[in-house]
Amino acid sequence: MEMTLAELAARIGAELVGDGAVRVHAVAPIDRAGAGEITFLANQRYAEYLASTRAAAVIVGRSAECPPSLPRLVAEDPYFAFREAIVALHGHREHPPPMEARDGVSAGARIHPSASIGAGCRIHPLAAVERGATIGRDCVLYPGVYVGEEATIGDGCVLFPNSVVYDRCRIGNRVTIHACAVIGSDGFGYATHHGRHEKIPQTGIVVVEDEVEIGSGCVVERAAMEETRIGAGTKLADLISIGHGARLGRGCLLVSLVGISGSVEVGDFVAFGGQAGVAGHLSIGSQAQIAAKAAVVSDVPPGARVAGIPAIDLDAAKRNALAGRDLYGMSRRLKELEREVGRLTAALETLRREMAATGSSPDDAPDPEHDS
Amino acid sequence: MEMTLAELAARIGAELVGDGAVRVHAVAPIDRAGAGEITFLANQRYAEYLASTRAAAVIVGRSAECPPSLPRLVAEDPYFAFREAIVALHGHREHPPPMEARDGVSAGARIHPSASIGAGCRIHPLAAVERGATIGRDCVLYPGVYVGEEATIGDGCVLFPNSVVYDRCRIGNRVTIHACAVIGSDGFGYATHHGRHEKIPQTGIVVVEDEVEIGSGCVVERAAMEETRIGAGTKLADLISIGHGARLGRGCLLVSLVGISGSVEVGDFVAFGGQAGVAGHLSIGSQAQIAAKAAVVSDVPPGARVAGIPAIDLDAAKRNALAGRDLYGMSRRLKELEREVGRLTAALETLRREMAATGSSPDDAPDPEHDS
Amino acid sequence: MEMTLAELAARIGAELVGDGAVRVHAVAPIDRAGAGEITFLANQRYAEYLASTRAAAVIVGRSAECPPSLPRLVAEDPYFAFREAIVALHGHREHPPPMEARDGVSAGARIHPSASIGAGCRIHPLAAVERGATIGRDCVLYPGVYVGEEATIGDGCVLFPNSVVYDRCRIGNRVTIHACAVIGSDGFGYATHHGRHEKIPQTGIVVVEDEVEIGSGCVVERAAMEETRIGAGTKLADLISIGHGARLGRGCLLVSLVGISGSVEVGDFVAFGGQAGVAGHLSIGSQAQIAAKAAVVSDVPPGARVAGIPAIDLDAAKRNALAGRDLYGMSRRLKELEREVGRLTAALETLRREMAATGSSPDDAPDPEHDS
Repeated sequence: MEMTLAELAARIGAELVGDGAVRVHAVAPIDRAGAGEITFLANQRYAEYLASTRAAAVIVGRSAECPPSLPRLVAEDPYFAFREAIVALHGHREHPPPMEARDGVSAGARIHPSASIGAGCRIHPLAAVERGATIGRDCVLYPGVYVGEEATIGDGCVLFPNSVVYDRCRIGNRVTIHACAVIGSDGFGYATHHGRHEKIPQTGIVVVEDEVEIGSGCVVERAAMEETRIGAGTKLADLISIGHGARLGRGCLLVSLVGISGSVEVGDFVAFGGQAGVAGHLSIGSQAQIAAKAAVVSDVPPGARVAGIPAIDLDAAKRNALAGRDLYGMSRRLKELEREVGRLTAALETLRREMAATGSSPDDAPDPEHDS
Repeated sequence: MEMTLAELAARIGAELVGDGAVRVHAVAPIDRAGAGEITFLANQRYAEYLASTRAAAVIVGRSAECPPSLPRLVAEDPYFAFREAIVALHGHREHPPPMEARDGVSAGARIHPSASIGAGCRIHPLAAVERGATIGRDCVLYPGVYVGEEATIGDGCVLFPNSVVYDRCRIGNRVTIHACAVIGSDGFGYATHHGRHEKIPQTGIVVVEDEVEIGSGCVVERAAMEETRIGAGTKLADLISIGHGARLGRGCLLVSLVGISGSVEVGDFVAFGGQAGVAGHLSIGSQAQIAAKAAVVSDVPPGARVAGIPAIDLDAAKRNALAGRDLYGMSRRLKELEREVGRLTAALETLRREMAATGSSPDDAPDPEHDS
Repeated sequence: MEMTLAELAARIGAELVGDGAVRVHAVAPIDRAGAGEITFLANQRYAEYLASTRAAAVIVGRSAECPPSLPRLVAEDPYFAFREAIVALHGHREHPPPMEARDGVSAGARIHPSASIGAGCRIHPLAAVERGATIGRDCVLYPGVYVGEEATIGDGCVLFPNSVVYDRCRIGNRVTIHACAVIGSDGFGYATHHGRHEKIPQTGIVVVEDEVEIGSGCVVERAAMEETRIGAGTKLADLISIGHGARLGRGCLLVSLVGISGSVEVGDFVAFGGQAGVAGHLSIGSQAQIAAKAAVVSDVPPGARVAGIPAIDLDAAKRNALAGRDLYGMSRRLKELEREVGRLTAALETLRREMAATGSSPDDAPDPEHDS
């Protein structure tokens, strides 16, 4: 949607420095933005582009150092202002109407007669909704979606193609589940007995609270007992595995390929870097930050920042990593020191003997090997 | 299913300490179980709850220390007894009847006329079975399942929604494949020639033996030649990648996000922790245990326990990890030692010179730099 | 397809040492190949089998040491010659005709009237092609495939079951996308504001260039702005996550479970080992090699080989890993050295005092603690 810079500034609550009559219609990266496009300094490594960008305006924070002539939108929270600009100019994703549909529900969808479909839903062909399932209002179910028996989906949810919600799981409102994500498949639970891994029926479910977004290919296991839970506003990137009985709090962020083992308890607003892993039955406090690749093997207190394999305090881990960059050098220096200490010991002994020979009593002389 | 504690005790082969007439109907976690519920001490960190649990009874091992008044079911193998209690009280998962079905096969499924479907199958709408494929007796194919040409599925298998079995692969009996898992897609094989990665046709297949369970989103690649094999009773959690030509033995357990490279040979009853990885063409002996996050880069003997990146003996890895928690401290101590040794060397030299000056011959005195 | 060794030698451009009249029909692994089968020394660890193989012939390089009587096909690039032999004997994968099809398009597929389907396509039942999408010539869309609105698929592409291409993404020619892979789902982008993660509309797309192959379960996120790009001839194994706005060059190879964060720029012919990860906004030069499990946290120059967590130069990482195998031993040796240096210091001090007592002035004597 096209608008003037002045209009955009008002819309996103930013202060405009520049010509408010300039028209803008899109956002673009700082090094490629041109006329009519808004940009943003997403990362300090692109700061050099502030001088050369051809964008109509750059969204910056109050403390940003900009060329005086740079048209800019100055905001308290520039990243959020940029998000607001994207929403203003591009809007949110729109969903296509289902094919062969009447009142939004495709004739090519397979919906059990006992299922309940809320008003305003768009259910595409090739989606399946099982017996006793409930879909709230204004949901979108793309082709290939499967909603199992007695599962419930809240209002305003979007289930992208081939995503799967197993039976009895409960999805809140305004939840987005991306393609090929799986909610509620069996937890990995076996009792090994006489050499056989006997399956433990996974009697629990998954509860996904409001405004959760689950990326493509994620898997959230159902609990052996009771529930696995994803707290409100938590966002999962792609290919993340959440073990059975784990409970994530509100507002957590998980980057791709993270693995959370069974029965882990995670507080609110915890952030996990990519490929991090958490061992079973641990507790991670609210506001904690787990670095990418970290292996969490003990409880993490609230607000702690941890990194490493095994994970320890982030600052300690950074210092260790720095030291470890030349571990080989350390091992060589250690060896060299051992040699030098050997030489010193021998030299001291020689000196001691010399001294003894030149007058003092050997019995009084120090013995470097056994004196401490 | 409700029953008395006495009945349950008999059913699971446990010795009851408490009132056998108490009725129970479900299992629950130790900290949340209430009247009518059975629980289990799943992890020693919950032992404190033994004193406070309101469960009707706790399943414990013979050596457990319990409050005398705690109603309990004492079992030789308490975890297995707990599994038996879940089976007794909750039963195994039931599968819904397919929609629009006659004799269990939905009119909305796409089944090639040449495919063979065994008696007792439940084939849901939107499942596809290709030319020449064979489905055994009593299988369940959920919506979105794809079984490729001439693939064979044994008896009693369950293929959850959107799982895919490529052409010619062979699935044994009582195999469970969870949603969006893929069996038999092409192995990652290219011959790079004149700057092009020329695809190596993957002529082999995947063989999945009896009683294997494959978690959601797993991918098992077909072999370049012959077969990739998953041995009987092996269980895969979620999002695991098994490379082409790999062979897993019987009864292995793989936690989520493990990667096994091509041509790896794994023995029987090998356990892999989450996010572990194995480089190509290696051999891992039976009963070996590979810790979470480990990077296996050399053969692992039978029964070995390994951990670390690269993986080494578990005990050594643990000691190393402990030492490594203060690697930075080690580097500082090393530097300090170097300083001290420098000071000692200088001091010794000074002393040597002093001695020479006070009477002994310099030629006889030790030289700490070159003496050894 | 059966042929003589002489014919095969001509076909793959190899020099035959042996009887050209021998008939061959298949390839097999060196330890299991028998009459009529060709094999290849895929890995030096199988060299022992050269003496015992019963294969009709082994494809080897010019410098290979073989038993003189071993029938062999000697090639400049033996791995490529082997690939050519597989193509000659086994051919490329064939795709089944769709069920219920007329002119290759199944009546059970859901194709929007406005979509464009090229000549020679085979579109299976249960595939869905949305409004305004374009499918080129000679493509195969298996059951469960979803092609979103205004997405374009080039010529000769194969989309395996349940793979998903989101709206507006652009797939080149001769691209293969394996089962349950997802192209173009939303990038992981939120602006956190007043405790809420506000979704940043992902306005960009994914562009997949010609001759890319994408393994099962991979996820390529669409860009927040502009595009995520996978360069021509790049090959992805399974369960790989490519973040929004990342750009991979031509001919890259990515092993399973790799994670590339958003906005990463990767050059041409870069190789990533399994489970490697790259932090956001980094640049990786052409021909670089990233070892398995590596954590790339800074730019990688062209041609560099890196490994480790965090990733450093490969040779340094190997030396460090070797040293680190006995980090615990190092820590003990360090402690022992500290003890010895303490003893030496004390011994030297004693000696110094002795000397002072026997004649020289204490004031002139060295003080090992403070002298340097």
